[in-house]
Amino acid sequence: MSDLPATISVREVGPRDGLQNEDPVPTGAKVRLLDALAGTGVQRIEAVSFVHPRAIPQMADADEVWAAIARNPAVRYSALVPNLRGTERALAAGFTDIEVVVSASDTHNRRNLNRSTAESLDEIAGIIGRCHAHGATCQVIVATAYGCPYEGDVPVSRVLGVVDRAVAGGADSICFGDTTGMATPTRVTRLVGETRSAHPDAPLGLHFHNTRGTGLANVLAALELGVTDFDASVGGLGGCPYAPGASGNVCTEDLVHMVEDMGIGTGIDLEALLDASRLAEDVVGRQLPSQVLRAGPRTRLTPVD
Amino acid sequence: MSDLPATISVREVGPRDGLQNEDPVPTGAKVRLLDALAGTGVQRIEAVSFVHPRAIPQMADADEVWAAIARNPAVRYSALVPNLRGTERALAAGFTDIEVVVSASDTHNRRNLNRSTAESLDEIAGIIGRCHAHGATCQVIVATAYGCPYEGDVPVSRVLGVVDRAVAGGADSICFGDTTGMATPTRVTRLVGETRSAHPDAPLGLHFHNTRGTGLANVLAALELGVTDFDASVGGLGGCPYAPGASGNVCTEDLVHMVEDMGIGTGIDLEALLDASRLAEDVVGRQLPSQVLRAGPRTRLTPVD
Repeated sequence: MSDLPATISVREVGPRDGLQNEDPVPTGAKVRLLDALAGTGVQRIEAVSFVHPRAIPQMADADEVWAAIARNPAVRYSALVPNLRGTERALAAGFTDIEVVVSASDTHNRRNLNRSTAESLDEIAGIIGRCHAHGATCQVIVATAYGCPYEGDVPVSRVLGVVDRAVAGGADSICFGDTTGMATPTRVTRLVGETRSAHPDAPLGLHFHNTRGTGLANVLAALELGVTDFDASVGGLGGCPYAPGASGNVCTEDLVHMVEDMGIGTGIDLEALLDASRLAEDVVGRQLPSQVLRAGPRTRLTPVD
Repeated sequence: MSDLPATISVREVGPRDGLQNEDPVPTGAKVRLLDALAGTGVQRIEAVSFVHPRAIPQMADADEVWAAIARNPAVRYSALVPNLRGTERALAAGFTDIEVVVSASDTHNRRNLNRSTAESLDEIAGIIGRCHAHGATCQVIVATAYGCPYEGDVPVSRVLGVVDRAVAGGADSICFGDTTGMATPTRVTRLVGETRSAHPDAPLGLHFHNTRGTGLANVLAALELGVTDFDASVGGLGGCPYAPGASGNVCTEDLVHMVEDMGIGTGIDLEALLDASRLAEDVVGRQLPSQVLRAGPRTRLTPVD
């Protein structure tokens, strides 16, 4: 384990992927949470998504949220889009980092985006072109990369086929989404390894859900391969639409707490992040699955009375 | 990650370490849980501890529990003891696998056992001798092996000093207890590596708590070193006396679910284990932190309607 990266870059996705899977919260609460997160030292925040408000009412106020936050110049804010229409809205709002999502499994893509994976991919080259013409970057997020809740296992070759198309289309980076928490460490090792072999120069980010408890083990497997780009959600905000009551994204403070103790820098102030996590609990009105928020960091000692 | 072990052996510790950190439950409920667990295919169960009932009222009925269960001949049942008096009770009850616990940190040992680590170690050689004279095995569990809630970091050299004494005293195996969930993967790698160097022939088990979310990542780090002996608690039963509301031991079904998907056999029937986990929730009357119980195994698909 001697060749772990010295630092990683965390993308905080609580305000988007987290809140998208919670009951809708007021615009002002989102703004407070985003501003608190921007003060933690985190370098990147997925702020909103531009999706149809009927599909995802939780993100209907994306423009208002984006207009209201105190944009921290040290933070790169991104927006997720499902299609060209969302891309136009995100670019018009002034976003310079765009993420477009496509599922590796056809059934999930149809349920999520109302068309086949191939149809989404046909559009994505155009989306990337539009982003670049606007001076924005475009990341392609491959959802259901480790398995699909409808289809089960998704062959690595199918995921790589999506990556091939994304890279050929000019994607600035690729992100593998473990949409419903079906990844385990050996699956991470295999998919990352094969992707690296096929596209050694494509920057790669990983997005894990802790639905079945494997989130941080998957992160460890990826760290051992030198991956340095991870998504996480403050407090573990979010959930899984396919498993009511299950956990959402890997929790940011649990990730930061673990890797910092391993000597891997994140640039994030854990105490500030825990404050943001308490705010996130306030915002959604429920206890979040964060473990470090409950137990405190390992450095917090019990007094001997 | 190609040299992962083909199989591991899980010791189910929910009935002891789990229930010891829950509100007391009736004897009959413990018996039902133990018998359900014995039918899951798990090879070893830590059934009870023989401790002073004033210190741990949850285990006051150890003899009654042990007398009432349907002892499955395919399962090795063990008892945990804190001292010679507990050892005599366990041997008199007929246990043939004894675990004696000592903390690597003096402050924790004094709080837990009312004496210094050195004083406990002085007694342990005699305990091992008594066990062997009875034809029983004796494992020495080194608690606070990755950190102490009172002292903070515990030097690896101090943990190794305890192991030296245990091995010199004739211990059949060593187990490192991550008593309050302070382990992270690099700490596991270092401690296991140094122990192996010093005592290559001493069988080694690992006992992780998921207090800060690192449990399965720590298991992965240990698997990569070839460790094959892990403690876990059904449903994640238990908690942490130093952090109210925090999680307890690594959850057995989450561990089994992860490693089986990685091609590592456990001999455990996951569905039977999930039934036992539901029973454990019934027994303690609260939702347990098990993730796989909430979300279902990754192989359980969502119907396309």
